Formats: sequence, structure tokens, C-alpha cells
Amino acid sequence: MALRIEIDHTDGAARTGRMITDRGVIETPVFMPVGTRAAVKTLDTSDLERLGPPIVLGNTYHLMERPGADLIERMGGLHTFMDWSGHLLTDSGGYQIFSLEPKVSEESAVFKSVYDGSAVDLSPERSVQVQEQLGADIAMVLDVCPPLPSAREVQVDALERTLRWAERSKAAHTREDQAQFGIVQGGIDLEMRADSAQRTVDIGFDGYAIGGLSVGEDRTEMIPALAAATAELPTDKPRYFMGLGDPVGLVEAVANGVDMFDCVLPTRLARHGTALTSEGRLNLRNLKFAEDDGPIDPGFDHPWSNRFSRAYIRHLLVTNEPTAGRIITLHNLAWLSDLTAQMRAAIEAGTFAELRQSVLDVWVR
Amino acid sequence: MALRIEIDHTDGAARTGRMITDRGVIETPVFMPVGTRAAVKTLDTSDLERLGPPIVLGNTYHLMERPGADLIERMGGLHTFMDWSGHLLTDSGGYQIFSLEPKVSEESAVFKSVYDGSAVDLSPERSVQVQEQLGADIAMVLDVCPPLPSAREVQVDALERTLRWAERSKAAHTREDQAQFGIVQGGIDLEMRADSAQRTVDIGFDGYAIGGLSVGEDRTEMIPALAAATAELPTDKPRYFMGLGDPVGLVEAVANGVDMFDCVLPTRLARHGTALTSEGRLNLRNLKFAEDDGPIDPGFDHPWSNRFSRAYIRHLLVTNEPTAGRIITLHNLAWLSDLTAQMRAAIEAGTFAELRQSVLDVWVR
Repeated sequence: MALRIEIDHTDGAARTGRMITDRGVIETPVFMPVGTRAAVKTLDTSDLERLGPPIVLGNTYHLMERPGADLIERMGGLHTFMDWSGHLLTDSGGYQIFSLEPKVSEESAVFKSVYDGSAVDLSPERSVQVQEQLGADIAMVLDVCPPLPSAREVQVDALERTLRWAERSKAAHTREDQAQFGIVQGGIDLEMRADSAQRTVDIGFDGYAIGGLSVGEDRTEMIPALAAATAELPTDKPRYFMGLGDPVGLVEAVANGVDMFDCVLPTRLARHGTALTSEGRLNLRNLKFAEDDGPIDPGFDHPWSNRFSRAYIRHLLVTNEPTAGRIITLHNLAWLSDLTAQMRAAIEAGTFAELRQSVLDVWVR
Repeated sequence: MALRIEIDHTDGAARTGRMITDRGVIETPVFMPVGTRAAVKTLDTSDLERLGPPIVLGNTYHLMERPGADLIERMGGLHTFMDWSGHLLTDSGGYQIFSLEPKVSEESAVFKSVYDGSAVDLSPERSVQVQEQLGADIAMVLDVCPPLPSAREVQVDALERTLRWAERSKAAHTREDQAQFGIVQGGIDLEMRADSAQRTVDIGFDGYAIGGLSVGEDRTEMIPALAAATAELPTDKPRYFMGLGDPVGLVEAVANGVDMFDCVLPTRLARHGTALTSEGRLNLRNLKFAEDDGPIDPGFDHPWSNRFSRAYIRHLLVTNEPTAGRIITLHNLAWLSDLTAQMRAAIEAGTFAELRQSVLDVWVR
């Protein structure tokens, strides 16, 4: 087996653990920064090493287009290409291509390249093959991601096809040093979520992802759908909520037994000047920070970002200096990493409910 | 005195030394990276600390406009604003404003702001005042920078006015912890260069800069004009060639007794994908690097940039990932720093002529 998880502590449904691979150990819950095109925007691999995330995401769709999976394979795989010895996870390409209005048949999804407009044909088997060429430690099956809201029959079709594609993906997977995760769909329908989870587990994967949530639905719709899925997932496999990166989402997902998350949000916000802080989101372009000599977040002591004043960062933002995005990116990733560390400590101490409430108090308005 | 230089070795006119201030010691010859708006583009202060330049430039014109000298002064000065404990030098604003077609009177230069089109009025005294508010270790006098080529009478007027403004700048200067450098003008006319140098020395400054060269003239015009100036400068004061950052320019300037240089070239080239290497300039966007798994410069072992392959950096460049500019910026600055270290070692060993020739062999085509 390429990957296993050892659960160390539980507090309600929340849990801490260690995900163990041939490459090393990942403490969970864990937030995974997104390195779309083999780099986390504004950072290099040395930055990641100092920042310390145990795992980073790469995007299969973007990398298969530029520079191409064959090239990355010839260069020794994605780890060697980025010179990154930590863990990597590649998505399947599903999420990106379903934003490109694909023509989906039973065989595959056909869509226009965002790079040159040419037709791209991605089947479950091709996604497996590309991800094996990229060589990440964890690969995802290709799923069908309908938008929310969608008609029930669209959701049912997506769910059923995702299951058939999951079987094909499992059959196509050959790398024993690469874990493969299945993806639960089903929109915000609780029965469909449970059904999708059960049948994905029946196929059998190294871990299970929750797809198709945090795509615009209310939190009151998201949480029951998530809970309906996790209730059906085995406790001895990792659970991964795809595309989740806001503090409220993180505590709610962990409260429901999720171990892994990723999202472009903290890095994208950073490049636009918004910092995650213990006071909530701060738009550092705001005039009120022009002479604020305090750090980004007085409640979070991070030596690389908090050495700079809000006044300095605001100046860099309003003059479009690329250094601004870099400083806030480092801050936001460190801040989210700290939040996951706080969650692990609270679960171990049996105080997760208090931590969750304190996050909701700041972030839910 | 805020600054002195101790000359340690000479080899012909080339020299090594230590520039000593209250803040510390700068080994010369030294290349100074440019942090136009209080940041070297794509880098933060922690990067500078790891990279190790002993001194960085700030641009008086840009900083007086955004965020403003009053604000930086209230924030504790430019060192505190950037959280940079190394040395800083601020230019006078002259070079920038003379690219903005100013109306120059005996009193001052009036020109349109690049930020909002408003009229900006910069006099020698105002430049001194702004630079004292910024609080760099070294300040420059406001000079008149005519374009090359210019009519002789334009050059003469610029030279004479620069001298009168230098006297006013010296009279206006009050900070004892800040060195002030004069600037030699005179275009490519050898007599005018010598005259400007002598009379600037007569006014008396902590150091002397060569302005108005490396602005498009041939190397065969630049070097004699430079030599005509340095011949008149005292050996016990630092000499600074403003706006010089190409390898040929550096070895030629050092061969003529220059101690300090700055230029945006190495960082600007980096952001456009061009690396300085022992093989010359490399445009890393070139298709021929698409599968090149070698480092940027096999002849230069730098641990932060050379860990990445040309193939990886090319991929980041062609997909417009900001990480590319950062990696090449780190490389180019480290590479130029290494070139100055090589020059210092060669001068000490008495082999500077050989080093100069080896640089010309690669870079002059």
C-alpha cells in the first residue's frame, strides 16, 4: 500500500492522525497549498521548505498542457522538476475542465484548451496515465463535477458516471508508489451523498475525497452534505475536502472528520492584498493602514511576514510591487498552517468545540 | 565623518577597499541592487539578508511620491520601513526627473508626476531634505542630467548648474549620520569631465559619483570620459558609477578605479527571463531550453537558483508564473555579487587584467 493513516486522537468526529507514505509522514488535519503550474505563485521551492507544508498540490490539467506530462516525465517527474522532496498530490483535471463547458460522453470529456483553443480529450484512463507520469504521491480519479445548483437528474448522472469512471480509473492505475483517491459526488442531496460515498468505498481506494462542495452553496447546505458523506467513509482512510481553504470551512470540515484540504483562496487573496488574520480578513490596500506600523496580524507571530508593517505592505500593494503578494502569500499560508496546528492541538486536548466556536465568532458575520 | 574608505590593494588603477560607516563595513568594489520603491522587485528583506548585498538603493523620486517622505520619516525612516539593517543609498531624483522632460530653472526642476500628472517641484535643497527624511546612509546631490548626445552648450550649462546645485546641496545637508556624495557630469568630453571632477572635489564631499554615462554612448566613448573624471578624484574617497550593471561595464569601471555601481538591469532582465551567466546572457524563454535539465549557469554554483533546471524555469516563464522572475532575480544578483568578489580577489592577487580580459572575451561580441 502506498499510503495509510494512523488516527491518534478524536474529539467528537474531529480527528488527528499521521498519514504515512514511503516519502514520510504528514500530520493531519493538513492544509495543502496549491502549486498550479509546479510552483506556488510568488514562492519558490526554497520558500516552501522554510514554510514547511508537508504536501503541495499540482494541477494535472495545467501541467498536461504546459509543459506537458511527457516532458515532466522525461525530466524525472514533478518532484524532480520542482526540486521538491515533500509530498505532492495531483488533482485529476476534473474541476478545471468542468469549468470549460466540456462535451462529456461515457468515454471522456472533450473541451477547448485554455492555452491555444485546441480540442483536449481527457478520459479517466488518460488522467491516470498523466498523473502517473507526473508521479505525485497521491493521485485523484477523474470525476464529473456538475455546477451547483443543478437539476436532480444532472446530479444523478454525474454521480453514476463518476462511479463508473472511478472503476475505470482504479483499473488503469499501475504505480504502486502512488496512492489513488476516489471522489464522492452527490451535490447537496444527503441520500445521494451517502450513496456516492458507499459505492465509492465499495470500489476501494487509498483515501476518499469530497468533491463538488464549497462551490457556492450555503454553509447550511454544505455541512449536512459533507456529514452525510463522511458518515459512510471508513475511519481508517484519509478524507480530503477538495477546494476548501477558508477558516470557517476548515473548522467545519474538521468537525466532520475531514483530514485534508486544499484551495487557491489563501494565495489568490494574498496577491490581491487580503490577509487572513485573527481579526478576520484584512484588505491591506485600505487607506486606514497607510501609517499603521503594526504587523499584519498582532495575534499571530510569524517571523517572515510580521516583521513588516501594514504601512509598508500597503505601500508595496498600491505601487504594484510584486514583493507585496509574496509577503502576504507567506503570511496566509503560515497562518492557515498555524490554524491546522491549533486544530490538532485542540483535538488532542479535547477542546475542539471551543476552538471551532472562536473561529466562527471572528469569521461568521 | 559619516563615511570613509580604506584602500587595501591596488592593481593598476583598480582597487579593493572597505567603506566604513557607523552601520558597518562594505567591501569594495560593490554592486548595489536597486530597491526602487523600498523593495527589490520580487524579493523581500529576508531574501536580501540571505543574498547578502551590503547596500541597497532606494529611489528618492519614487519614494517622495509614494508613500511620501513625511510618511517614511514618521515610520522611522527607510531602514525601519523596509526592516533592513544593511546600508542604504538614495539617489537624488535627478536621473528619474530628467527622463520626464522637466522645466529646469536655476532654482529647481519642475515636472509632471508619473503617478498623477500633478506638478512636482524639486530643488537641490528639497532633494537633500527628502533624503534626510528617508535617512539612507548615503545621499546624493541633485544633478542636471542632459541626454547623450547633447549640444556642447547644453552640456556646459548642465555641468555648471550641477556644480552650483552641488554647493547648495552641501549647504543644505544637516544629518551627520548621513554621507553626501557629489556627482561629476560633463558628457563624453574629456576636458569637461576633468573640470567637473576637479570643481566637485573643490566643493568637497564624502564620495564622488560619475553621472551621465552608460546612457547609450559607445564603450569607446564611455571609458575615456570615465578615466578623465577618476584621474581628478582623490584616492581616499569612494567613487561610484551611477547606473552601471553590465559585466563589461563593471570590469571597465573597476579597471578605472571605481568602487561602487548600481543598476536596475540585472533585476529587470531577470523579470523578462534573461540570466547573466558565464556563457553570457541567456534568454531562458528560448525553446532550446525546454528540456535542458542543467542549471542556469553550470559555471556558477549558487544553491538557491542552480537547484532549478533551465527546463523548469522556462516552463515558469512561458506560463507567466511570478516564481520565474524571482528565481532569476536571485540568480542575477548573486552572479553579479560573485563577479565583484572575483574582481576583489583578482586585484588582491594582481591578476585583474586577466579577469577583465576573460569577461570581455565572453561579453563583447
